[in-house]
Amino acid sequence: MPFAFTRMNKIIGILTGDGDCPGINAVIRAVVRKSIVYGNTVIGFRKSWKGILEKDIYPLDMNAVSDLMAKGGTILGSSRTNPFKYEEGPETILKHLRELNVEALVAVGSLDTLMVAEKLFERGCPVVGIPKTIDNDLPLTDRTFGFDTAISTVTEVIDRVHSTAESHDRVIIIEVMGRYTGWIATYAGIAGGADCILIPEKPFSIDDVCKLIRRRHQRGKDFSIIVAAEGARPKEHNRFIVKTDRVDEFGHKQLGGIGNFIAQEIERLTGFETRVTILGPMQRGGAPTAFDRVLATRFGVKAADMAERGAYGKMVSLQGNDIIEVKLSDLIDKVKPVDSALYEIAEVFFG
Amino acid sequence: MPFAFTRMNKIIGILTGDGDCPGINAVIRAVVRKSIVYGNTVIGFRKSWKGILEKDIYPLDMNAVSDLMAKGGTILGSSRTNPFKYEEGPETILKHLRELNVEALVAVGSLDTLMVAEKLFERGCPVVGIPKTIDNDLPLTDRTFGFDTAISTVTEVIDRVHSTAESHDRVIIIEVMGRYTGWIATYAGIAGGADCILIPEKPFSIDDVCKLIRRRHQRGKDFSIIVAAEGARPKEHNRFIVKTDRVDEFGHKQLGGIGNFIAQEIERLTGFETRVTILGPMQRGGAPTAFDRVLATRFGVKAADMAERGAYGKMVSLQGNDIIEVKLSDLIDKVKPVDSALYEIAEVFFG
Amino acid sequence: MPFAFTRMNKIIGILTGDGDCPGINAVIRAVVRKSIVYGNTVIGFRKSWKGILEKDIYPLDMNAVSDLMAKGGTILGSSRTNPFKYEEGPETILKHLRELNVEALVAVGSLDTLMVAEKLFERGCPVVGIPKTIDNDLPLTDRTFGFDTAISTVTEVIDRVHSTAESHDRVIIIEVMGRYTGWIATYAGIAGGADCILIPEKPFSIDDVCKLIRRRHQRGKDFSIIVAAEGARPKEHNRFIVKTDRVDEFGHKQLGGIGNFIAQEIERLTGFETRVTILGPMQRGGAPTAFDRVLATRFGVKAADMAERGAYGKMVSLQGNDIIEVKLSDLIDKVKPVDSALYEIAEVFFG
Amino acid sequence: MPFAFTRMNKIIGILTGDGDCPGINAVIRAVVRKSIVYGNTVIGFRKSWKGILEKDIYPLDMNAVSDLMAKGGTILGSSRTNPFKYEEGPETILKHLRELNVEALVAVGSLDTLMVAEKLFERGCPVVGIPKTIDNDLPLTDRTFGFDTAISTVTEVIDRVHSTAESHDRVIIIEVMGRYTGWIATYAGIAGGADCILIPEKPFSIDDVCKLIRRRHQRGKDFSIIVAAEGARPKEHNRFIVKTDRVDEFGHKQLGGIGNFIAQEIERLTGFETRVTILGPMQRGGAPTAFDRVLATRFGVKAADMAERGAYGKMVSLQGNDIIEVKLSDLIDKVKPVDSALYEIAEVFFG
Repeated sequence: MPFAFTRMNKIIGILTGDGDCPGINAVIRAVVRKSIVYGNTVIGFRKSWKGILEKDIYPLDMNAVSDLMAKGGTILGSSRTNPFKYEEGPETILKHLRELNVEALVAVGSLDTLMVAEKLFERGCPVVGIPKTIDNDLPLTDRTFGFDTAISTVTEVIDRVHSTAESHDRVIIIEVMGRYTGWIATYAGIAGGADCILIPEKPFSIDDVCKLIRRRHQRGKDFSIIVAAEGARPKEHNRFIVKTDRVDEFGHKQLGGIGNFIAQEIERLTGFETRVTILGPMQRGGAPTAFDRVLATRFGVKAADMAERGAYGKMVSLQGNDIIEVKLSDLIDKVKPVDSALYEIAEVFFG
Repeated sequence: MPFAFTRMNKIIGILTGDGDCPGINAVIRAVVRKSIVYGNTVIGFRKSWKGILEKDIYPLDMNAVSDLMAKGGTILGSSRTNPFKYEEGPETILKHLRELNVEALVAVGSLDTLMVAEKLFERGCPVVGIPKTIDNDLPLTDRTFGFDTAISTVTEVIDRVHSTAESHDRVIIIEVMGRYTGWIATYAGIAGGADCILIPEKPFSIDDVCKLIRRRHQRGKDFSIIVAAEGARPKEHNRFIVKTDRVDEFGHKQLGGIGNFIAQEIERLTGFETRVTILGPMQRGGAPTAFDRVLATRFGVKAADMAERGAYGKMVSLQGNDIIEVKLSDLIDKVKPVDSALYEIAEVFFG
Repeated sequence: MPFAFTRMNKIIGILTGDGDCPGINAVIRAVVRKSIVYGNTVIGFRKSWKGILEKDIYPLDMNAVSDLMAKGGTILGSSRTNPFKYEEGPETILKHLRELNVEALVAVGSLDTLMVAEKLFERGCPVVGIPKTIDNDLPLTDRTFGFDTAISTVTEVIDRVHSTAESHDRVIIIEVMGRYTGWIATYAGIAGGADCILIPEKPFSIDDVCKLIRRRHQRGKDFSIIVAAEGARPKEHNRFIVKTDRVDEFGHKQLGGIGNFIAQEIERLTGFETRVTILGPMQRGGAPTAFDRVLATRFGVKAADMAERGAYGKMVSLQGNDIIEVKLSDLIDKVKPVDSALYEIAEVFFG
Repeated sequence: MPFAFTRMNKIIGILTGDGDCPGINAVIRAVVRKSIVYGNTVIGFRKSWKGILEKDIYPLDMNAVSDLMAKGGTILGSSRTNPFKYEEGPETILKHLRELNVEALVAVGSLDTLMVAEKLFERGCPVVGIPKTIDNDLPLTDRTFGFDTAISTVTEVIDRVHSTAESHDRVIIIEVMGRYTGWIATYAGIAGGADCILIPEKPFSIDDVCKLIRRRHQRGKDFSIIVAAEGARPKEHNRFIVKTDRVDEFGHKQLGGIGNFIAQEIERLTGFETRVTILGPMQRGGAPTAFDRVLATRFGVKAADMAERGAYGKMVSLQGNDIIEVKLSDLIDKVKPVDSALYEIAEVFFG
């Protein structure tokens, strides 16, 4: 058919970096399926940039991506490898892509991976970015897939503790992900009907929290559910740091333990029995929600279109109902704080 | 405080009409909670407009709405009552609202209820609309709550039948809601990885469906999952009507049975064993998803703001990330068809 | 170690027959894992007895069964092949097993597969049986895995329709699996709080059903939820047969459609709006519940022990808390009807 | 009707004590519904024995228990009140029951509540016991309701963390309930495919755990999931105690923090990145599973029968498939350890 005349088929590479989240496999599936429609071939690289540096390849044909839609995590694996921290790293990336005849590279990741992608693009790497993070704090897109699944998981947990809290007159603290922003805490807190939500964007007063709990008791509500993002910090203790020798998957020093701190303070100041649930990694897992599957699929199909068209140096983005393209160079290394209008809605239901 | 000087507190009425969907109770809760912040009082009317005509009131204080967030259905009940079909109906509505000192009326419903609300507004009724439908085919808003829960339910069903289909080389038809539009079929079909999606907007060819199934067999996929909206219709049988004496909750003649029709045709034409799942009312039920809870809450809070401000003759609407106000008079009695770009994405995965 | 002296390692074959159900893959995983502990090797046969007749083998090492626990269906596939319907069928089975050095064969299936296993055992086949059916109507064992998952699915559906039924004053019929017995209908009906449960073991009177619905209306319950096993039959219409040219996976003529019949009768006799949900194949699917995963694992481990010991001609069985061995020859081709004491408990909540 | 002649209707009291668990409301519903069949009246007492001491009554008619089946927690509330710790406590209990004409008292609870019930029975209190605990470690019954829901919740969490663990080469510790016994850890661990399960019944060696993790790495499994009951203790650190000033709902000093201890040790000894999920109260919450709903309903119906018959001083119990009666005096203040055969099955899948 004439089509075949007008073009040579492309080899498209794909990698997944940073923390995993539900929907990555759905993205991989979508990129592969749409690329096959174009007659292109897709190869995966294992463990993010590491896979290119070591030419560690995962062939991705139609069968390789069947049955992937509902699978959590990423079949390609992930890692913290940053080629710019390796001698000749960027050059090796470009060299290996050339040697493998990879004409377009789809990079799925959070800010770290996408910033690397942009810097490689400036050096001539034909990259297309797909944003992902369960934290929803990535700029330039209304939503990232993974977030909806995370808030569904957390909301279900809040639903579960509600009956216990109510039956036993307890205060229950749920510590959720959100080191720098309170998107998960705020969304899931609203959805779960939390009585108080603590987020990194707004240092809280432990005394105000106790006042709120007492006020609830006065109106006959002898239980309270408090959702705290792991990055939430108390005003009174601005010198308060949770010591830890653990570093997170982004190489940052890991904070945490705020849930236990709040629980101890509340018991000390109010005498009310308090319990803590620390969700940790379960928030990243599970089958993606229908919303995330569709968003991830739309992102993947769009990225395959861009790879076909040669629209490099850009990333896909959700704006309203539409999937659009934005320049990777517009990305700045700064997370997107919680929409204050949304937090104000949450506050309507405090206490 | 000066505030108290400038205004008298309001009595706000609320009713829920048309088919129920997950999130209505979350809306009621939000309207009540935000109104309490304003010092306003909320009363519910039972079974839609019927409750005003019969002064059937449901008092809604803080306790009445606690524990409502996750509850499906509507505590106010619903009905098909249309005051314009009653003699003196509209006048009685206005008279009773005056007698009950209701200064603002929040009407939660689909097109039917909102059109009635608009016509009453033209007669001087201080109405604020909140759109709701699981079908997502309501104009003037990007999304309606209930839809996300419905597609989650349907997607889970598709996931479930997948393993049986695969183990037994079966064709499985899943008949889902969508009398006039294919939103649920398309979204859930993409999310569930359906091999074919049939919607009212695109009359289908049963022969093409069979071709697709055979093509899958040729590449070793001995099973197929087909999602069909109840309103989907075959080209070849454009005279084909499923006879029924049942009318739906909107008073329309109820179509249906397309799932069984397709199954019989496929078995007749291909000889492949075929099974049918007809989801019916379960698609309206269950606890709302986190997404729907937050959307419903934002709608309810916004409606309470509008009732406070006296922004009547309008309805709340989701546009991108924002909750805005649109004129009820801009509503036309016409459903919003599936976004064709979205259906094209679904087609990428057909066969 | 002396152990090695006393024996040569065995090759163990495994096949899965009849309708699939959640937990089969967990059984396969358990047989393989425990056999590896014994130093035995396991090979799978594809599509039940067909796999032995055609020497269609699926190698099952440790990696092949990792990540299988939560997977519905059966990775080995299933079929209705009955070797006794093939000329030289049984002889071929024994011949091929000898040629493949298979010293023990684990047959996972319902009554049909297990009866075949028994007849082959009489001809010298070293078979160990594992009972499975979502219908829970298999004799000689308290429970079969798959059943708990099926009733969980159906119960969730009943929960979902509850809110709609209540909000709209509807009668909702849920047609569930159970061609010959009402185990699923009775268990899920009790768990979902059904107002009436119709099962094959007890022909029902449509008039009594309508009486019950009217009685509920009299006490202000304007909705009713009726769970009907597909094999339930009305007294009044003892000549009533639902015509169908479809045969089920057991080769029996498939009954069905009772849900629609009841709905039409109720609307005709009471005038109450009625809706139907026909669950169909979704009841077989999905990830197994924790209960089914543990039961399937215990069955699989026990079967591996029996294969190691050479305890042939027997099947595993749950008795109280214990997994025991029973003779396949004690199986009779007769399903186990619903425990009448259990149905009486369900009746306490009727009307 | 003659029936009315032969007997006077009874007033039956019911209370729920100790930690809440899914299914208690289903029990209350069943006791009330079956008692109504007998023409008996049921009244609830709020917050366990406290409700009798203070005559704090909750009327339980048919409407009060409708819609209760799926509701977690207990509508009657619970407390740690022990009448024997009050002066004249037991006498007051008996006196108040007489004054309220309560002829039979159904006590739903764990060991603490049931031991109190037995001691009151010896003083003439007409008590019927219903055992409940999510820990499944109550003697004299095969199962308690709440356990199945708890293991379902934990199993889902293990499923969720699996994908993250696999994508990131992590060790993930899941700390679950089980202060004195490892029932939840063992059952959910088997169901979730845990690579190691640590329980109070078997002090563990942290070195063995690290060996196991390293062995997995050697065979290419770079991740491990460890389920630890909160009461699990390491051999090497037999002096190891987690300090805490918190007491649990049984008045015992609360242990805990073992999850963090293990995580730190594993990182220290193996260098592998480790994450912790501490489930806490969410394990008590949520809608009961179908299994727990049916078991709770059978318990409740049986208790209503016993109250009617006057079979006092006994509790209901599940034995195999049957609900039987056992003497409360046979209860000893000692939990039931995990079935060692079950733990051995878990061990098959370790490493």
